[in-house]
Amino acid sequence: MSCPIGNYNGDAQSGERLGSEAGMLYGDYLMLDKVLSAQRMLSVESNKPVHDEHLFIVTHQAYELWFKQIIFELDSIRYLFSTEHMEESRTLEILKRLNRIVLILKLLVDQVPILETMTPLDFMDFRDYLSPASGFQSLQFRLLENKLGVKTEHRVKYNQKYWEVFSSDPAAVEKIAATESEPSLADLVEKWLERTPGLEEDGFNFWGKFQESVEQLLLEQEASAMKEEYEHVKNYRLMDIEKRREVYKSIFDSSVHNALVTRGDRRFTHRALQGAIMITFYRDEPRFSQPHQLLMLLMDIDSLITKWRYNHVIMVQRMIGSQQLGTGGSSGYQYLRSTLSDRYKVFIDLFNLSTFLMPRGSIPPLTDEMQKALNLAWGSPAHRPRHQVKHLTEK
Amino acid sequence: MSCPIGNYNGDAQSGERLGSEAGMLYGDYLMLDKVLSAQRMLSVESNKPVHDEHLFIVTHQAYELWFKQIIFELDSIRYLFSTEHMEESRTLEILKRLNRIVLILKLLVDQVPILETMTPLDFMDFRDYLSPASGFQSLQFRLLENKLGVKTEHRVKYNQKYWEVFSSDPAAVEKIAATESEPSLADLVEKWLERTPGLEEDGFNFWGKFQESVEQLLLEQEASAMKEEYEHVKNYRLMDIEKRREVYKSIFDSSVHNALVTRGDRRFTHRALQGAIMITFYRDEPRFSQPHQLLMLLMDIDSLITKWRYNHVIMVQRMIGSQQLGTGGSSGYQYLRSTLSDRYKVFIDLFNLSTFLMPRGSIPPLTDEMQKALNLAWGSPAHRPRHQVKHLTEK
Amino acid sequence: MSCPIGNYNGDAQSGERLGSEAGMLYGDYLMLDKVLSAQRMLSVESNKPVHDEHLFIVTHQAYELWFKQIIFELDSIRYLFSTEHMEESRTLEILKRLNRIVLILKLLVDQVPILETMTPLDFMDFRDYLSPASGFQSLQFRLLENKLGVKTEHRVKYNQKYWEVFSSDPAAVEKIAATESEPSLADLVEKWLERTPGLEEDGFNFWGKFQESVEQLLLEQEASAMKEEYEHVKNYRLMDIEKRREVYKSIFDSSVHNALVTRGDRRFTHRALQGAIMITFYRDEPRFSQPHQLLMLLMDIDSLITKWRYNHVIMVQRMIGSQQLGTGGSSGYQYLRSTLSDRYKVFIDLFNLSTFLMPRGSIPPLTDEMQKALNLAWGSPAHRPRHQVKHLTEK
Amino acid sequence: MSCPIGNYNGDAQSGERLGSEAGMLYGDYLMLDKVLSAQRMLSVESNKPVHDEHLFIVTHQAYELWFKQIIFELDSIRYLFSTEHMEESRTLEILKRLNRIVLILKLLVDQVPILETMTPLDFMDFRDYLSPASGFQSLQFRLLENKLGVKTEHRVKYNQKYWEVFSSDPAAVEKIAATESEPSLADLVEKWLERTPGLEEDGFNFWGKFQESVEQLLLEQEASAMKEEYEHVKNYRLMDIEKRREVYKSIFDSSVHNALVTRGDRRFTHRALQGAIMITFYRDEPRFSQPHQLLMLLMDIDSLITKWRYNHVIMVQRMIGSQQLGTGGSSGYQYLRSTLSDRYKVFIDLFNLSTFLMPRGSIPPLTDEMQKALNLAWGSPAHRPRHQVKHLTEK
Repeated sequence: MSCPIGNYNGDAQSGERLGSEAGMLYGDYLMLDKVLSAQRMLSVESNKPVHDEHLFIVTHQAYELWFKQIIFELDSIRYLFSTEHMEESRTLEILKRLNRIVLILKLLVDQVPILETMTPLDFMDFRDYLSPASGFQSLQFRLLENKLGVKTEHRVKYNQKYWEVFSSDPAAVEKIAATESEPSLADLVEKWLERTPGLEEDGFNFWGKFQESVEQLLLEQEASAMKEEYEHVKNYRLMDIEKRREVYKSIFDSSVHNALVTRGDRRFTHRALQGAIMITFYRDEPRFSQPHQLLMLLMDIDSLITKWRYNHVIMVQRMIGSQQLGTGGSSGYQYLRSTLSDRYKVFIDLFNLSTFLMPRGSIPPLTDEMQKALNLAWGSPAHRPRHQVKHLTEK
Repeated sequence: MSCPIGNYNGDAQSGERLGSEAGMLYGDYLMLDKVLSAQRMLSVESNKPVHDEHLFIVTHQAYELWFKQIIFELDSIRYLFSTEHMEESRTLEILKRLNRIVLILKLLVDQVPILETMTPLDFMDFRDYLSPASGFQSLQFRLLENKLGVKTEHRVKYNQKYWEVFSSDPAAVEKIAATESEPSLADLVEKWLERTPGLEEDGFNFWGKFQESVEQLLLEQEASAMKEEYEHVKNYRLMDIEKRREVYKSIFDSSVHNALVTRGDRRFTHRALQGAIMITFYRDEPRFSQPHQLLMLLMDIDSLITKWRYNHVIMVQRMIGSQQLGTGGSSGYQYLRSTLSDRYKVFIDLFNLSTFLMPRGSIPPLTDEMQKALNLAWGSPAHRPRHQVKHLTEK
Repeated sequence: MSCPIGNYNGDAQSGERLGSEAGMLYGDYLMLDKVLSAQRMLSVESNKPVHDEHLFIVTHQAYELWFKQIIFELDSIRYLFSTEHMEESRTLEILKRLNRIVLILKLLVDQVPILETMTPLDFMDFRDYLSPASGFQSLQFRLLENKLGVKTEHRVKYNQKYWEVFSSDPAAVEKIAATESEPSLADLVEKWLERTPGLEEDGFNFWGKFQESVEQLLLEQEASAMKEEYEHVKNYRLMDIEKRREVYKSIFDSSVHNALVTRGDRRFTHRALQGAIMITFYRDEPRFSQPHQLLMLLMDIDSLITKWRYNHVIMVQRMIGSQQLGTGGSSGYQYLRSTLSDRYKVFIDLFNLSTFLMPRGSIPPLTDEMQKALNLAWGSPAHRPRHQVKHLTEK
Repeated sequence: MSCPIGNYNGDAQSGERLGSEAGMLYGDYLMLDKVLSAQRMLSVESNKPVHDEHLFIVTHQAYELWFKQIIFELDSIRYLFSTEHMEESRTLEILKRLNRIVLILKLLVDQVPILETMTPLDFMDFRDYLSPASGFQSLQFRLLENKLGVKTEHRVKYNQKYWEVFSSDPAAVEKIAATESEPSLADLVEKWLERTPGLEEDGFNFWGKFQESVEQLLLEQEASAMKEEYEHVKNYRLMDIEKRREVYKSIFDSSVHNALVTRGDRRFTHRALQGAIMITFYRDEPRFSQPHQLLMLLMDIDSLITKWRYNHVIMVQRMIGSQQLGTGGSSGYQYLRSTLSDRYKVFIDLFNLSTFLMPRGSIPPLTDEMQKALNLAWGSPAHRPRHQVKHLTEK
């Protein structure tokens, strides 16, 4: 039974049912005549049938179907983010759709082993029918990357010239160009982070307070290190504190930050980075908990795309090998390996946030006003449970 | 990059590439114009767009794509099994294709949680566009079940009358009828098991030897039980031995066996069952090791289809609920639950084999001749490793 | 590298490191001397080494480790729920811990195939060393079930008498008894749902409004059905509406509801059920979005435990068979199958909620006051994105 | 129910059971007193309880349990491989155990997301209790790598000096040293490949035949390329053929091969490489099908360990960040990234085999004698199926 949930009100056992007056038939609705007639085996047409070509086609069509779904979700998420005054009531919707993308990406990762059941010898039997560059021609994957926020300047050289890859398809070139000028998810998230409540210098002034806390913490650690009995431990600790001071400088000194952005090692504006750190620190406050989940999901998406690329690299190595000796040229394997670098991670700054965290005890306390702005009350004092439940790690 | 393995010999970084003279383009090859234009949202056409309808369509299309692949593999496996004198050299090919089906089924099971991200409220927003019976209308799933070996008489009553479900599609009815008359995978496996070498009464006579071994073992266990110190332990053990004797009778007494077949509790012919037990016992012999793997994969397929049904049931319960009170009628949920029974398991006999096994020490020893028939030698006495590796559980 | 994250500040390449003065060593911290010396193979001690016994032991120890972690999380969640006036700021923490339980349960489901690599013949070689009842003796799993909310009266008969199973371990009996008197997670969730803001009869009065909406909707559907051209479609629709009226009665008429609770078909109090429905309807409001996620996670936990039981059943069938003929007694397989019923689902009411939903357009609109109570504003009117993003399904 | 399969013959429903006379109790058998008392939270002992420390401990203990199981399987596989004249009848057993390792490694990969639920802020709360180098101290993982065949000279510099890491544990140092002198799985596989039947120069002489076939194929391709209409296509093809000639030289010219081995780019001896290529070509012959499966599983193991390392890297980046600016020193993240290189792949040569394959039509045909040596017959001419099954891609 493909999908029984359509049959919500049929009286199944008795067989008493309605004809097609009452709604569309399953196969017509899914346009299966189109979808299931699109498996054209070139090896069969060439009279040298290769069994495994069918798998190759179906696997890639499944990938493309899911790419379409991811793009559909991405577009809707960008829409929700892009309204002038984004309503907080839409955050759950955004979370749900990001989470759906995460689940789909997991499926795509799991799909790789199916294609791996095709052994190199089988693949060799039909790969000659394909254009040598065919792998670079998934229009949808290119759109997906751009809509997420992969920038042309971060791509490896070859991968930048999409107009060559799609030279015979002007509509594709136009679509790609459009995604490069529209705000990407990364752009919209950046703007949203810049609006994080609490960043106002004349208000809670999070950034000022955070800098003070860091300075305070480092001084305390220095004092503690000076009391170390063993000289080499003391020196190690002092050196470590000095390193950390340098590290923090990269976010407190906006010129260092901007240099890193120019180099491509950092992406967010200075203010967006501040917002992300603030949300991470105060994520237990009701109003920040969904934004925090949102940041986690963005990292999941980045991680999963990289995992997918990685699994793909391993499969390609198994399928076509990686040794191209004496030529100096790069193989498909080498190209793919290069896309695993951090440069293709759209939300790299979120991954690196952990570098700048500090122990809970040192985080600047919320003011009453700020606390109120971030809090909510639920229900009223109610039935007290008869038996108290105790737990080890709660005070 | 959707599929970089096409680019096996392009010189990626330099961008020096050939035009389309050299092969087909990725998008044309995959007929993406068809596949990606088959998502028609009825809610959009009705001017009440429901975001989640897109997911519903894509998920079901992905299911159908994979059903097509499974059917493609099943057909090829049935072909390999059906040649008069099936060559053993094709067993590996069969194993590979069964294993591929297993991987695809795992993916289908993993796909369920994606559809679960659609909440009931969302689903309610567009389900009215669908035919009430639509869930029962996956032609491919029906074909897949039949080709595996689900028999009409084992189906629940409603599910038998496919000509009603597909009343408007005569071609579908014909295809289903065809699969009911062709030999199913289960039929072909049965014939193959009947040919297991070693079953010949005038040769190794496995079945005769096995019966003797069982009788011997039960007598020994009885003698041992009689020596038990505690009365209730002794009685328990004796009762247990008596039960086991009854259990074995169901395979040794062909009239009991046949009665079970008539009731639908067993499927294989008596001789095929013997072959399956023999393979299980001597699976370490080279010639039986692939047949044994084959039996394991058949069970995997049965298990995974049942798991998929089960996950589906849970999803349907979440999506449309299970309580239909006061009507006496069955809901889609109740129908689906009913397909979880062992009656829908095609290789149920393989699952139940374990009931009839005996400890390794009691298995009838191979004769020299039989041993030779099942054995192979590999390589010649060669380099002896310098360091011996010891392992705990080896003698 | 087992866990490199310990090495957060070491200077890895240079090898310049501190001795153990600075913290605990990995192996000591994890008490690996205890954990890795607890694999005692009875078959080795009996001088009949069976290779696969090692896997059997390790797999079950891994299960028990994760059971301990789940219990640890469950206890902390129950603590967070049980404070008199549960603070909404802790909801994210609860969500995170429930989600962690979900991930662990998924791992446990995935662990089943590893144990399945042990074939029946291998298992038969050492199972005699085990107590026949051993499978029923996982104390932790029993505690876990009780802490979730599996009630003694819903268990199958045999499974109720834990004092027999643990007769030789009074401490275990005591622990089980304790979990039966403490409030379970289900109890605490029930109390929390009863406090859902908006249920107050003298306030928003959700329940009254919902009843009106249902009545209104059914009347409209009746009117529409009366206009059907085809008689049999009309009759079918009218019959369907009558059925739905009956179904709704089961929640509006508290005497019907209570009868269902007595029969064990429903679990929540009438008021808790109202809270759950209300949260489901208005889950897009910021204040209800986390509660809604919480309800989803509770269902996930229930589903996964059932899936785990189910996978286990299939493995047991493969390992020991299911046919115990002529005895009338039940096998381990039959027992396990019986625990798959909905009676072992703690949050069965949440699964059935979908039965009572209605199209979005018919849901009672929020009053201004209620809207305000459930809403939050984020940020201030800010940078408008330069390019508008359009999306198909948004108005 | 932790493990119901113990209860194979109990009469479950009636509750009639035996006491512990009949076998060992579940908890005693699993030594749960040891396993479940080994979770010692340093944060609790320091009176600053951190909830997530429990997860950290349990996750790592579960890793170590599975490492122990993998080592147990590896030892037994090395034993089976190491007997002077390895019997082919043990190949299935080796396959089963390799496959089990594969499943366990998949579980370890899936376990990473559970640890990822611990956020950086939580981790920061207790990581100070751990030794800075603790992550490098998993003795079992080091043993596992060595037993597989990771060589000291392929490790990154820091990772070579295990005696520093385990300076306080002489027994550990001794164990590691032992694994470095014993034959690893890679060593034993190499010896086994060298014995591949058909490599004998005075017999089938596979290597000679293969060289001829390659030369023949390249000449044909050259002739075909010369006929190309478009000049740039012709040149591209000719260049490509020249490249392939170079590539093949690296396996045909033993001095090039040996130079690659010295550089660490290749691992197998020349003769072992020949065996691996031969098995890959003739894998459809019965006698080579299990050896071929074996090679596939070795690649799976290599891939999965690399995937596990990779997922770990991503988690570490999320947990502790990757930016250590201005210091020039490497972080744990950088170290881990370095272990992802192909140098840590033990069976890298198998992955690269695909580089040297040729289309099925060009593979040297088997002689009658060789065919016979690799073949087996199954069953006797038997019941012909009544209906022929046709399949698209079969001739």
